[in-house]
Amino acid sequence: MNDEFYMNYALQLAAGAVGQTSPNPTVGAVIVRDGEIVGMGIHLKAGEPHAEIHALNMAGCKAEKGTLYVTLEPCSHYGQTPPCTKAVIESGLEKVIIASTDQNSLVAGQGIEKLKQAGIEVETGLLQEKADQLNEPFFHFIKQSKPYVTVKQAVTLDGKTAAKTGDSKWISGEESRRDVHHDRSLHDAILVGINTVLSDDPRLTNRNEENTRQPIRLILDTFLKVPYTANVVTDGAAPTWIITGSKADPGKAAKLKKKGVFVYAMSTPDLSIEEVLVFLGKKGVMSLYVEGGATVQTSFLKSGHVNRLITYLSPKLIGGEDAFGMFNDMEIKTMKEAKHLRFQSVEQMGEDIKIISTLEIG
Amino acid sequence: MNDEFYMNYALQLAAGAVGQTSPNPTVGAVIVRDGEIVGMGIHLKAGEPHAEIHALNMAGCKAEKGTLYVTLEPCSHYGQTPPCTKAVIESGLEKVIIASTDQNSLVAGQGIEKLKQAGIEVETGLLQEKADQLNEPFFHFIKQSKPYVTVKQAVTLDGKTAAKTGDSKWISGEESRRDVHHDRSLHDAILVGINTVLSDDPRLTNRNEENTRQPIRLILDTFLKVPYTANVVTDGAAPTWIITGSKADPGKAAKLKKKGVFVYAMSTPDLSIEEVLVFLGKKGVMSLYVEGGATVQTSFLKSGHVNRLITYLSPKLIGGEDAFGMFNDMEIKTMKEAKHLRFQSVEQMGEDIKIISTLEIG
Repeated sequence: MNDEFYMNYALQLAAGAVGQTSPNPTVGAVIVRDGEIVGMGIHLKAGEPHAEIHALNMAGCKAEKGTLYVTLEPCSHYGQTPPCTKAVIESGLEKVIIASTDQNSLVAGQGIEKLKQAGIEVETGLLQEKADQLNEPFFHFIKQSKPYVTVKQAVTLDGKTAAKTGDSKWISGEESRRDVHHDRSLHDAILVGINTVLSDDPRLTNRNEENTRQPIRLILDTFLKVPYTANVVTDGAAPTWIITGSKADPGKAAKLKKKGVFVYAMSTPDLSIEEVLVFLGKKGVMSLYVEGGATVQTSFLKSGHVNRLITYLSPKLIGGEDAFGMFNDMEIKTMKEAKHLRFQSVEQMGEDIKIISTLEIG
Repeated sequence: MNDEFYMNYALQLAAGAVGQTSPNPTVGAVIVRDGEIVGMGIHLKAGEPHAEIHALNMAGCKAEKGTLYVTLEPCSHYGQTPPCTKAVIESGLEKVIIASTDQNSLVAGQGIEKLKQAGIEVETGLLQEKADQLNEPFFHFIKQSKPYVTVKQAVTLDGKTAAKTGDSKWISGEESRRDVHHDRSLHDAILVGINTVLSDDPRLTNRNEENTRQPIRLILDTFLKVPYTANVVTDGAAPTWIITGSKADPGKAAKLKKKGVFVYAMSTPDLSIEEVLVFLGKKGVMSLYVEGGATVQTSFLKSGHVNRLITYLSPKLIGGEDAFGMFNDMEIKTMKEAKHLRFQSVEQMGEDIKIISTLEIG
């Protein structure tokens, strides 16, 4: 058993809570003494104890002279809960090994400093890349005050999202479609354009399991065209927020509000992705899953605010320029101007392939 | 050490000669006695000894009471070389373990029968899937008398092969482009349409290494528009075959032939993929690597004669229906009508992903 083993274990603990700690990061902690695990914990939900506290409670007096493995630098400030550094120091731990340094300007490096001042040995950077990846949305949110944006698409190998008739049932296979429902539950909000609501009347919920966490359903609807009968208005299965331009009918907005839907008007007649993201950031939305359609997704891509693409590539071919493509025209004339991504992971998903790519945020 | 280990070893030997044995299959053989490898061999080139013979020559008298692991059923007929079964029987081998049964109707099962009649123990089917895959083009050729067709493309994640201006330098990265040169050398012939010759004037050679095997360069040129100055006509770097319709100018054909280019006129004014493939089969072309452009590749796909797609997917996005797509319109209206593939392998290739998909030949 070595340090890497225990940190990996802490990372596995943390991974279990991805999607449910927003706007907090996901954190795992393990306490080891004399080669035995004596405590472990994860942060489950904002407002509840941090991972270190759970682990210390479990260890009790066995924490003394032990080593704490924690995936993120312990906090040193009073937020919704007391600072973890205080509890760590009082526990008598001998050593703390940290994967990611916190990038929140309120705590960055301060936690480590406090521990060192108390005579605790501190090491940082063990499996940091893995730990950083786990909390990418959190770090982005902390630095930009805007949600981390994921654009999801299901496409044929030749980049088509529907045949020229609009038929798209189904591009991807069952396992991919189940995976989408799961990924929805890992995000704070799911976003679609009004055209998707008008043409498909989607429910935009995670329907893999019952009683699961349901993200906010966000509709970009510049002119407030949403029908009163739309599933997202009537089914009450999850919160629905509608973002409109400044010229949308206030009477209709009021009626929708009475039905339990939140309607937010932005400052200009047309929607700006930048303004929408700043607004969502203020509302505490840390991660956004943009499902479609191509018009909305192209607006996001052109705005330079897409962090990540999730592409379900299906082993099918449609062909022809009349079939629907992934993105609309972006006035790209040369390969140099093309949007450059980085393939982060490629995974088999039934008959399909799930590709996660990241973009440099400009 | 067990049977699977030795058969894997024989398969690795065979893999080294892929692309140079046409129109013969690729075969590897290992002889083991008392837990020691006493002989090994591969078939290097049509007309030269088969793998079993090389292995028996190396083993000499040590072959007696040994076991032969061979990736393909030994032949039992007189072709360009004497039958291998005869040599195997005379060697005193005790046992023969075979991966693939030969699918050539001249030898299927007969080799096994002869060995059994001579009192040799025979096992078949060990690692057969791997062995079959190694010789897919051979088995296809033997059964259909037509080349095994691979369509190669380099595309962005959103299925574009060029920006709307036609700029495509470069879609894929350096490693992918090097891999294309290598894959060319594994095929009997490389095929492009005349438009590719007119717009890009490609050389269509494997330029990774010097003195390497160069496949035939095949141009589909219905009206014999190829310029006398094209690289494929003048550079003498590899054989060039031009396939024309029945109405092409015989005078120009005669002049091209004087320059060392082969010109073959088909029976109809327009080219039929079926007729071209039957013709190439008669000429002994076992494997065809179709490089482009979209018009030719779409004709192949529509004809139902594509066995395999090799797609280099690059982490870039272009967007827009005016950018060039992988395939032209195929009158596909619903997802059910879409061409269905099977992803056979996905491999990282520098910054790109190389995807090999297979099609059911209908």
